Amino acid sequence: MPVKYSITRNCPQTAARLGELETRHGTVKTPAFMPVGTQGTVKAVTARELEEMDTGLILGNCYHLFLRPGIEIIARHGGLHGFMNWPGALLTDSGGFQIFSLGGLRKIDDRGVSFTSHIDGKLHFLTPERVTRLQNIIGADIAMVLDQCPPYPAEYEEVKDAVKRTSLWARRCKQAHAREDQALFAIVQGGVYEDLRRLSAQELVEMDFPGYAIGGLSVGESKNLMYATLKNTAPVLPEEKVRYLMGVGSPDALLEGVKQGIDIFDCVLPTRIARNGRVMTSQGYLSVRNSVYAADLDPLDRDCSCHVCSNYSRAYIRHLLNTGEILGLRLTTYHNLYYLDRLMRNIRAALAEDRFEQYYNKMSPGLNQMYGGF
Amino acid sequence: MPVKYSITRNCPQTAARLGELETRHGTVKTPAFMPVGTQGTVKAVTARELEEMDTGLILGNCYHLFLRPGIEIIARHGGLHGFMNWPGALLTDSGGFQIFSLGGLRKIDDRGVSFTSHIDGKLHFLTPERVTRLQNIIGADIAMVLDQCPPYPAEYEEVKDAVKRTSLWARRCKQAHAREDQALFAIVQGGVYEDLRRLSAQELVEMDFPGYAIGGLSVGESKNLMYATLKNTAPVLPEEKVRYLMGVGSPDALLEGVKQGIDIFDCVLPTRIARNGRVMTSQGYLSVRNSVYAADLDPLDRDCSCHVCSNYSRAYIRHLLNTGEILGLRLTTYHNLYYLDRLMRNIRAALAEDRFEQYYNKMSPGLNQMYGGF
Repeated sequence: MPVKYSITRNCPQTAARLGELETRHGTVKTPAFMPVGTQGTVKAVTARELEEMDTGLILGNCYHLFLRPGIEIIARHGGLHGFMNWPGALLTDSGGFQIFSLGGLRKIDDRGVSFTSHIDGKLHFLTPERVTRLQNIIGADIAMVLDQCPPYPAEYEEVKDAVKRTSLWARRCKQAHAREDQALFAIVQGGVYEDLRRLSAQELVEMDFPGYAIGGLSVGESKNLMYATLKNTAPVLPEEKVRYLMGVGSPDALLEGVKQGIDIFDCVLPTRIARNGRVMTSQGYLSVRNSVYAADLDPLDRDCSCHVCSNYSRAYIRHLLNTGEILGLRLTTYHNLYYLDRLMRNIRAALAEDRFEQYYNKMSPGLNQMYGGF
Repeated sequence: MPVKYSITRNCPQTAARLGELETRHGTVKTPAFMPVGTQGTVKAVTARELEEMDTGLILGNCYHLFLRPGIEIIARHGGLHGFMNWPGALLTDSGGFQIFSLGGLRKIDDRGVSFTSHIDGKLHFLTPERVTRLQNIIGADIAMVLDQCPPYPAEYEEVKDAVKRTSLWARRCKQAHAREDQALFAIVQGGVYEDLRRLSAQELVEMDFPGYAIGGLSVGESKNLMYATLKNTAPVLPEEKVRYLMGVGSPDALLEGVKQGIDIFDCVLPTRIARNGRVMTSQGYLSVRNSVYAADLDPLDRDCSCHVCSNYSRAYIRHLLNTGEILGLRLTTYHNLYYLDRLMRNIRAALAEDRFEQYYNKMSPGLNQMYGGF
């Protein structure tokens, strides 16, 4: 088994679970948030810093790495672990979402998808088999199937077609998958249509993947709609397999996702907003570029003990961002990743002590109020 | 005494000396290269990383910090050490050079200099007294006098006037200087005119500063002309006082400067070229963005054991720079600072073992060939 998931404790009151995901590159405690390293680097931070934050699992992107630097260069380094010198666990997204959102989509049919690169406009054709082979070479601990992610909103028939194609492609990815030391996870689609979500999940569960992702959420629908869809989808997935909710990283949604039985999450949110000077704090978002912080000696978050909050003032970080200093981006990024890491640690601690429901009830209203609107 | 310089060993054959500069924030082993932290951060690196490289002294800039974030904000942090959270020794340049090179110079007379900010065009007026008071508040271990740095080339009379004014201002800075725990260093001007250099040095030496900088070099003149000027100037400075050559950071010139009796150096070179993908190696400059490195598994420098060269390939760093990833700038910057730090360590080791002349003779031809043209 390339990865082994085991539940160490179930929440007595909710669907939440505490678990461990064993990989060739360490054991990841779940529920966990996975920082995004699209192009072979979690933006602005090093492996050392991620390890300091206790991050055990990060994500790369097959679509981006295929375009730049190209898979053969990664192969020469023995895979993405060697290329980026990351000792921990690694997952690669197939890039299905990126092909549909970033690339100039030309044509999609059951064979595969042709698209133009968002970088140089060059035409490419990717099939489920090819994406699987590429990810075999990239060599992450976990690869993802090529899926079709419809936009939001989308008509029922369009989403139904995407579900069918996602199932077809998942089967072909599984057949093409040729690395015993790598796990291949499926991706459930179905938009916000309850029956399509269930259909997608059932079809994929029959194929027996070692883990299941829920894709096509957090793409523009309301949070209530996302939570409702999650509530319908998660229970269809097998209890003993790890569950991954894609593209979700706001604190309120992480807490809600855990409650619905999700084990891992990823999102560009913490790193992207950091580069705009927006940080997560115990009081909600804080835009540190704001002139009210010009002479503020407080740390980004008074309740945070991360390296950044232990050493730097808002006024200093604002100055760095205002003068275009790279260190500013480093500090805000580090803090946001630490913030989410701490949230997940707290969630795990609550689960370990059978008090997750209390924790949820205590934290949820505040998090929804502070972060629900994002 | 705010700083105390002592020579621990003189080179038996050259003017080079091994020394120690004691400050309130640690003892700096000299000869030393001082990374530039113009705006309150050495670009792209943290204090932790600088400490890891054994950097004991960095430089800030009064002109830049006066414009942004403004001195009152730094004052609220108890000074620049607190603002940027730098535990080591700190020197601030007065910004004379920046006023003349960056700002829109309006008028200069004996009273002071009026100029428009290079950021927002606002008109400012700075006098020697005011620059000294600003640096008192910034509170670095070492402050610099306000000097007048003529451009290169400049006519004899223009340089002579600048020397006179620099002496006048140095005297007024010394009188205005009001912090016993801070040293104030003078700056020798005189362009490439031997008699003016000697005149400037003599006038300033008579005023008895605790340290002397040589300014107005590395501003466009040839290296031979710079070395000739240095050879005439350094011996006029008192043996027992620390000597600082401003704006010099190329490896060949550091070695030559040490031979001529210089103790500290600063330059934006290592950090600036790093952000263009240009790194210093044992084989000379290497532009890692070059396509020949696209699949190169070697480290930036095969002879380097820094954190970057121990962990990352040229191909990876090139990929990061090509995709606009901040980590790329971090890695090239770290390596270049480490390269110069190691060079200075090697120079100090050679001095400590009375073999500097041999070291110089062995290294100088190669460094001149590899770096002399820059």
